[in-house]
Amino acid sequence: MNSQKGLRVVIIGGVACGPKVASRLKRLIPDAEVTVIDRSEYVSYGACGIPYFLEGVFDSIDALIETPAKVKRTPEFFEKAKGFKVLTKTEAKKIDPESKTVLVQDLESGKEQEISYDKLVIATGASPLKPPIPGIDKQNVCFVRDLNDASRIKAIIDKEKPKHAVIVGGGYIGIEMAEALKSAGLDVTIIEMLDQIFPQFLDKELSLLIEKYMKTRGVNIYTKEKVLEIKGNEKAQFVKTEKQEIPAEIVVVAVGVRPNDRLARDAGIACNPKGGILINNYCQTSDPDIYAGGDCVVNQYINPITGQPVYIPLGSTANKHGRVIANHIAGIITPYPGVCGTSICKIFDMAVGRAGLTESLANSLGMDVVSTIWSGPDKPHYMNGKPLVIKILASKRYRRILGVQVVGFGDVARRVDVAATAIFFKATLDQMAYFDLAYAPPFSPPIDPIITASHVLLNKMNGLAQGLNPLEAKKRMDENPDLILLDVRTPEEFSQMRLDDERVVHIPLGALRNRLSELPKDKEILAFCKVSMRGYEAQRILNAAGYDKVWFIEGGLIGWPFKIWTP
Amino acid sequence: MNSQKGLRVVIIGGVACGPKVASRLKRLIPDAEVTVIDRSEYVSYGACGIPYFLEGVFDSIDALIETPAKVKRTPEFFEKAKGFKVLTKTEAKKIDPESKTVLVQDLESGKEQEISYDKLVIATGASPLKPPIPGIDKQNVCFVRDLNDASRIKAIIDKEKPKHAVIVGGGYIGIEMAEALKSAGLDVTIIEMLDQIFPQFLDKELSLLIEKYMKTRGVNIYTKEKVLEIKGNEKAQFVKTEKQEIPAEIVVVAVGVRPNDRLARDAGIACNPKGGILINNYCQTSDPDIYAGGDCVVNQYINPITGQPVYIPLGSTANKHGRVIANHIAGIITPYPGVCGTSICKIFDMAVGRAGLTESLANSLGMDVVSTIWSGPDKPHYMNGKPLVIKILASKRYRRILGVQVVGFGDVARRVDVAATAIFFKATLDQMAYFDLAYAPPFSPPIDPIITASHVLLNKMNGLAQGLNPLEAKKRMDENPDLILLDVRTPEEFSQMRLDDERVVHIPLGALRNRLSELPKDKEILAFCKVSMRGYEAQRILNAAGYDKVWFIEGGLIGWPFKIWTP
Repeated sequence: MNSQKGLRVVIIGGVACGPKVASRLKRLIPDAEVTVIDRSEYVSYGACGIPYFLEGVFDSIDALIETPAKVKRTPEFFEKAKGFKVLTKTEAKKIDPESKTVLVQDLESGKEQEISYDKLVIATGASPLKPPIPGIDKQNVCFVRDLNDASRIKAIIDKEKPKHAVIVGGGYIGIEMAEALKSAGLDVTIIEMLDQIFPQFLDKELSLLIEKYMKTRGVNIYTKEKVLEIKGNEKAQFVKTEKQEIPAEIVVVAVGVRPNDRLARDAGIACNPKGGILINNYCQTSDPDIYAGGDCVVNQYINPITGQPVYIPLGSTANKHGRVIANHIAGIITPYPGVCGTSICKIFDMAVGRAGLTESLANSLGMDVVSTIWSGPDKPHYMNGKPLVIKILASKRYRRILGVQVVGFGDVARRVDVAATAIFFKATLDQMAYFDLAYAPPFSPPIDPIITASHVLLNKMNGLAQGLNPLEAKKRMDENPDLILLDVRTPEEFSQMRLDDERVVHIPLGALRNRLSELPKDKEILAFCKVSMRGYEAQRILNAAGYDKVWFIEGGLIGWPFKIWTP
Repeated sequence: MNSQKGLRVVIIGGVACGPKVASRLKRLIPDAEVTVIDRSEYVSYGACGIPYFLEGVFDSIDALIETPAKVKRTPEFFEKAKGFKVLTKTEAKKIDPESKTVLVQDLESGKEQEISYDKLVIATGASPLKPPIPGIDKQNVCFVRDLNDASRIKAIIDKEKPKHAVIVGGGYIGIEMAEALKSAGLDVTIIEMLDQIFPQFLDKELSLLIEKYMKTRGVNIYTKEKVLEIKGNEKAQFVKTEKQEIPAEIVVVAVGVRPNDRLARDAGIACNPKGGILINNYCQTSDPDIYAGGDCVVNQYINPITGQPVYIPLGSTANKHGRVIANHIAGIITPYPGVCGTSICKIFDMAVGRAGLTESLANSLGMDVVSTIWSGPDKPHYMNGKPLVIKILASKRYRRILGVQVVGFGDVARRVDVAATAIFFKATLDQMAYFDLAYAPPFSPPIDPIITASHVLLNKMNGLAQGLNPLEAKKRMDENPDLILLDVRTPEEFSQMRLDDERVVHIPLGALRNRLSELPKDKEILAFCKVSMRGYEAQRILNAAGYDKVWFIEGGLIGWPFKIWTP
């Protein structure tokens, strides 16, 4: 397409964004001179796969550095198959935008040289945060960043056979590592300083559901608890928190990452005060000949506009940055629209995902938010549908969807992706209510869960449905000893599980119209069922009969993050 | 919300749309008098679940008439739990829009009566087409319409233990029934008159992939073959086609359905000449007090506008119609935006889905279409990603996505739903290229397949990628004996499967730059690999070296619907 003979492009960082820029650029401008620099021995590896390697999903770490055709992604591979040069074990020390050079050092020989560029790409990634905990430098205290970390953790597990692991931090990586180490046979405890796991990722009522599930899988979780010290001799032996000492022959610290923006800052390139290189829609930095992408930059929210740059480092975004950068260098204008906060995480047999804003983030931005929680199966019951819990939030005034969170054992990714696509297009709830999504019994109920959730929120906005989310319901239950908890499930369902509360009145929905006399009109009534379709029906029946202090508990027992009695 | 005391709403048809209207209406207007009429004994059952009942996914047909809480959806259930009346075994004989009455007949007593309405809803569904094949009235020749049909087929299988089944018709229901009967242990043959299975649903290159797979699962398929006669005594014994006689102790006829619009037509309500009641966005017919929804109506394509009503009967659409109708009667204005041709079907372990137009439909409408086929795993290879094949088409001029088809063993529904949502919003390829979809290794590769497919089509539109879809490639192979088939996979891959063609030249991608001398510049070269990422890279390498008659085969060997040699 282009012939820009001799165009020199230097790319600092060889994991996701960097190799993507290089590969695409060589397809766009075959005679460009493209050089990728990385301080590690490995480039273009699947860093996100590390927890699954440790879990034993695959045996050899080589799988993470091979192509699907089992060719190792070595410098030779890139030279031969892709046509660009890779300098491994080489560190970029300094960028000089004035002379357009990068000072690099060969980490084996110590030799330094200057490399000239016409266009420079900074794709230096991120590094794990290292909190100032006494004992954090002990042996067997691990971070999860690169393949060396992965090998190190694997070696500890295989050789030292630790029995107890403590994970410091309850975000993605912490949770993924908890699953990995639990699956590898260890006793695992997560310590999270804040009052919930997945603190930035999810609203609390959903994170509580995940906590509840993880505990059934044998993982210990302590939130609102701070790690004070890692105790032991050379090796970690105990993790001491404000409340307890927990044995730990291996400690994984995963309290977040920070963008590697030092090189850019030192070169005078504009960065976010809180960290992260600032880029425009073409991934250009404040120096138009210097691009940046991947985990070292901050992004814009595509929509709704938060007005603030957000730091959400993900391999998916890094690859898209790479394409935008290569295109722009080659003269193809493909503006990057920004992220919409989409992410997903597997937790044993459960998945949890999100697109858009959480309610707590939207509230903190002063938005007029209305939300609901829906639960139900992801397929017809006769096809063994698995439960999903969906939280959906919208702007009250503009009816636009602000965010969707999905937790459950069914196809979570599908609903998150529909939400992400909808948010991309500034969808309103009214639009999502009629999306023509794929229906057949092996895949979904006739009305897809994401659509039903929209319907519920519309009903709520129209004043038809009066729902309380589980936290609101719990608060009301705690505050009002005199309310009625109206369980409208069948006797069979009632015998299998129920709320263990003496305020529970059990009247199956079909009998409700005939048994109204059992319910006083002056008390608050919280109706519910398994998922709360019938809870909502009960609310409508009671409204029609003149009851006006009636709510249903959104998400029903499936979405109830607190204790449920079973025989 | 509303109080329209005594509002009389009559609904003809009790399966999907009808009960949805009734249930929602009673929640919106608790004191409305709502009556549902159905000629069958059963109402509100899961008709789409019939093939899975016959396959043995669940044991009792009752599952299809029960709620998830195992309450049978009888007239008593609806009266008590939902508050509306259901008249089963009651047939609507005539609508009189003038006097606003429906003449109904009790099918047991034969007694007729007139029922008055303020608002009428026609939700009469569809009936299977009965082609004029001699012998079609024999015993053991079955249609798949309602629970009686399901019970009948089940009884034949259980009691008569037929060994051979012939399915007449290769659309959804035919294919679903083929899976069901094969899984139930029968020898199954599909006869399709047209030159491909899924004739309206899919483009041919994808339907061929499914045929190929179904044959590996032991289903016999004959396309372009017409059934002439069903032979036997009282019971079917053979199906005679133009070419052969096939033993068949059970015959399932599934050649399509037609909308039940007779009642509407007789009442002077506007219908599509080809069948189907015409409705506006509120599901009102030409008589504003008469609504219609579900399988008896034709819809509009949401986008792109085909200008023609389309007949795509689906339970998902029927339920949405029901909501729109109930809302409109209650004074809530929620226009139905139309369908975008989304559908999905499971075939053993494979799934196939579509959103938007097929290429053949778009071509027949005179649209300027450009398309591509992509194949690849739905997760990173180290997570055992399963293959998907995606066909994507766009308008050349406006770059808008016109349609997406997905076939494979991975998460097909997810990608179809993203496409359906994108098409809803008139997405361009350029937008889909940067959707922020959910990424983590257990769910997807860093760049989701639907996004990669968009990238490929963009590359093709930009003149960068020169792809031939499998049918185009096959045609060229048939016409030009002198071309070169350049297989750029690794030697290991080459030993495991390959095109059995003496024109194949095997040069692994990594060796290509050094072995250019083996390839003449004057011959046409078709490069390919397993999925055709490397095929595309080879094309670019050869272009850069001055070769200009080079194409890659889109979808590679994974997407190749013809014979592939394996040891």
